[in-house]
This record gives sequence, C-alpha cells and structure tokens, in this order.
Amino acid sequence: MDILSLLNWRYAAKRMTGQEVPQEKIDRILESIQLSASSIGMQPFRVLVIKDTELKSKIREVAANQPQITEASHLLVFAAWDTITQERVEDYLNRTIEVRQVTRESLAPLKAYADSMLNNSPEQNFNWTSRQAYIALGTALIAAAAEKVDATPMEGFNPQALDELLGLQELGLKSVTLLPLGYRDIENDWLVNLPKVRTKKEDLFITDKELQATASA
Amino acid sequence: MDILSLLNWRYAAKRMTGQEVPQEKIDRILESIQLSASSIGMQPFRVLVIKDTELKSKIREVAANQPQITEASHLLVFAAWDTITQERVEDYLNRTIEVRQVTRESLAPLKAYADSMLNNSPEQNFNWTSRQAYIALGTALIAAAAEKVDATPMEGFNPQALDELLGLQELGLKSVTLLPLGYRDIENDWLVNLPKVRTKKEDLFITDKELQATASA
Repeated sequence: MDILSLLNWRYAAKRMTGQEVPQEKIDRILESIQLSASSIGMQPFRVLVIKDTELKSKIREVAANQPQITEASHLLVFAAWDTITQERVEDYLNRTIEVRQVTRESLAPLKAYADSMLNNSPEQNFNWTSRQAYIALGTALIAAAAEKVDATPMEGFNPQALDELLGLQELGLKSVTLLPLGYRDIENDWLVNLPKVRTKKEDLFITDKELQATASA
Repeated sequence: MDILSLLNWRYAAKRMTGQEVPQEKIDRILESIQLSASSIGMQPFRVLVIKDTELKSKIREVAANQPQITEASHLLVFAAWDTITQERVEDYLNRTIEVRQVTRESLAPLKAYADSMLNNSPEQNFNWTSRQAYIALGTALIAAAAEKVDATPMEGFNPQALDELLGLQELGLKSVTLLPLGYRDIENDWLVNLPKVRTKKEDLFITDKELQATASA
C-alpha cells in the first residue's frame, strides 16, 4: 500500500474534463467515507451526492463560479449536523445496540459523553461536527486518488446561500466543504504541472526533544 | 490500492502492547501528514511527535488516564494555530514563492484570501485551522493502517492542561487531537473483536433525487 504515491499524485485540480466517473468508483469512494473514523463513532454529518447538471450549475453560482463544480462528474457536499439533539443521540445509541448486540446499559459512558454535548451551544457543536466531517474529507481524498479520480476540496462558497439552495436547514445540516470528483483537464489546468507546496518537515513537526529544549530555555 | 481493506482493518485500539514502531514507519506516516491537503495549502497546524516515556505519562494524566497514551510507541499531538497572523501569512507566501518560483504578484488572490482571515476573531480562525488539522488526521489514520500500525484518535483530554504542559501557547498553538501510534493488544482490548458501527449508507448519503423530492414535497 503506497499511500505516499497516492498523496503525491493527487492535487486540487482547477479544471476538469467533464468525463463521467464510473459508478463503482464513486461507490468505493463513498464507502471509504462511510468507514472513516469519527469521535465516538457518531459520524455527525451527511454527504450529498450530486450528479444533476442543472443543480451543479446553480451551486457553481454560489461558489465563486469555480468551473470544477460543473466539470466534475459527481459533486459531493459535506454537510455537518447543525447541532447535537436528543434524537440524534438516540439514533446513534440505537444503531450501536443494533450492530454490536449490546445492552443499552453497557453504553452508559458513550451516552454520557454524547449527552454532555446537549448542553453546548449549537455553534460549539457545529465546530465539533465539522471537524468530524473533515476526517472523512481526508479519507475521501485518498480513496479518490486510489481510483485515479481527481478531487478538489473547496471552501470557497457562500454557505448560507448553498444551504438555502439545497434545503439543508430543514435537514438540520450546514454545508462545510465541496468535493467535485472527476478527471483533471491537463491541457487547461494551470496548476497541473506546478510543484506541491508543503511546510518543511522541520517546521511542521516538533519533537519532544525540541519541546524540552524550549521549556528549559 | 485497496483503501477499503485498510479502513476495515483499522479501529481505535483501546489497549496497545508498548512495542516500538520502527522509525521508517513513523517517517512515512509523518510524510503522509506533510502531504495532506489543506485549504489554500496553508497547513495551519503543527504535529508534536512524542516518544519520551515521562512526558507520555504526564500527558496521560490530563487525558482521562487513557492507557494507549503510555502503551503507544509514539504519541502524535495535533495542534492547530491559535489564529492567523501577518507573520504566518508571510511565511506561507514566501514558502510558495520559494517552491514554485513564482512572483509575489502572482499570489495576489491567495494573499487576499489569507489576509481576509486577519480580520476574523481568533476563535473563528482556530475553528478553521482545527478543521485543516483533521484532514491530516484522516490521512494519518490510513497511512498508519498501510503500515499495519494502530492509531487511536482521541479528543478526550483537557486541552488547556495539555497546552500548558507542552508550552503550546508560547508556540501559538492549541491542541486539538491526540494520536497514539503503536500495536493493538489483542488479549486485553475489549474493542478488538467488536464489529464497526457505521451509519447506514442510505442515511449517510443523500442523492440529488432525494433532495429534489424533499424540495417539491
């Protein structure tokens, strides 16, 4: 499993060809999202899978007119729960009981943790639910690369306008990121041949020795 | 590349054996974090790599005494930037200029986007920087699985106490998640044989057809 070559292969394509991605590839990318880790396994987000041409055009209008949205085969919209509710906690506990065949009592610690979030503000909870969606986003990027499918994470959109367009408020969701899936347009993408810019390892990582040197300085 | 089998293999080990993970495996996991995507490529977080036994014991004390922290070979601490500063924007632009050999003028759109965050509250910026760290967390989980290394993402710690212990405030960082890396302790981990609980596909994913049915209902 060479994850590094997948990460080196992928980039945020700025133009896509419009070519359709086979459904079995999409299915595996979605399954990887489903299998992603999340805090206490709650998966407090949903993923919209949009193929409809007209709807993609409307989304593009509230997303800085970025061409990949309509040039993609499928557009994923990651939308996090707007907050944690009693009903959502119950669904989560019931799902765990169903899959693991355990008693409700055995889940008391999980329930206590989940219940504690009912006291948080919706904003606090949304910050938490958003983070969990981003773990799945990280997974989806690698899963797409493994299928040789390009994927461009996008935060450059008007979330209020998008939520309204998609009726997300009624679903208790708020959009956090877009992920067009398609194929890079090598001839028209200015980014395709530019080197990846990454923070140097010595800046990105801090060893315990460096920490202790700072602490004792 | 079978990402699905990696995701199925991995789980959040509750006990680890203490066995050391070879440095080359750690290096590849760290490199995958370095290569992870982030919004505008800014990578607004740092990762602490902790091997020191005494320091891991102290961290365990502020992390609900979770045993994996000291049973892990290496403990990663993902710490997001506490906010966006002018200096950080400059470093980011300079790094891009250095790697891509482009002019500063050509980066005007990136600079405008980055500069706009200088007007946000530290809290707003930290919510954004945290999300970017979680993309890298998602990457690290798959990279660890590819090395047959177990990894248990943890949010159950006292972030203020941990930041103080590690001197993160002085570095302009706030801890967001812990990731012990090690080997599952099959004999002592109650979770090892339990099935994964995941939201059903029909609940997790929403197709455009379902959206339109809701909108017209």
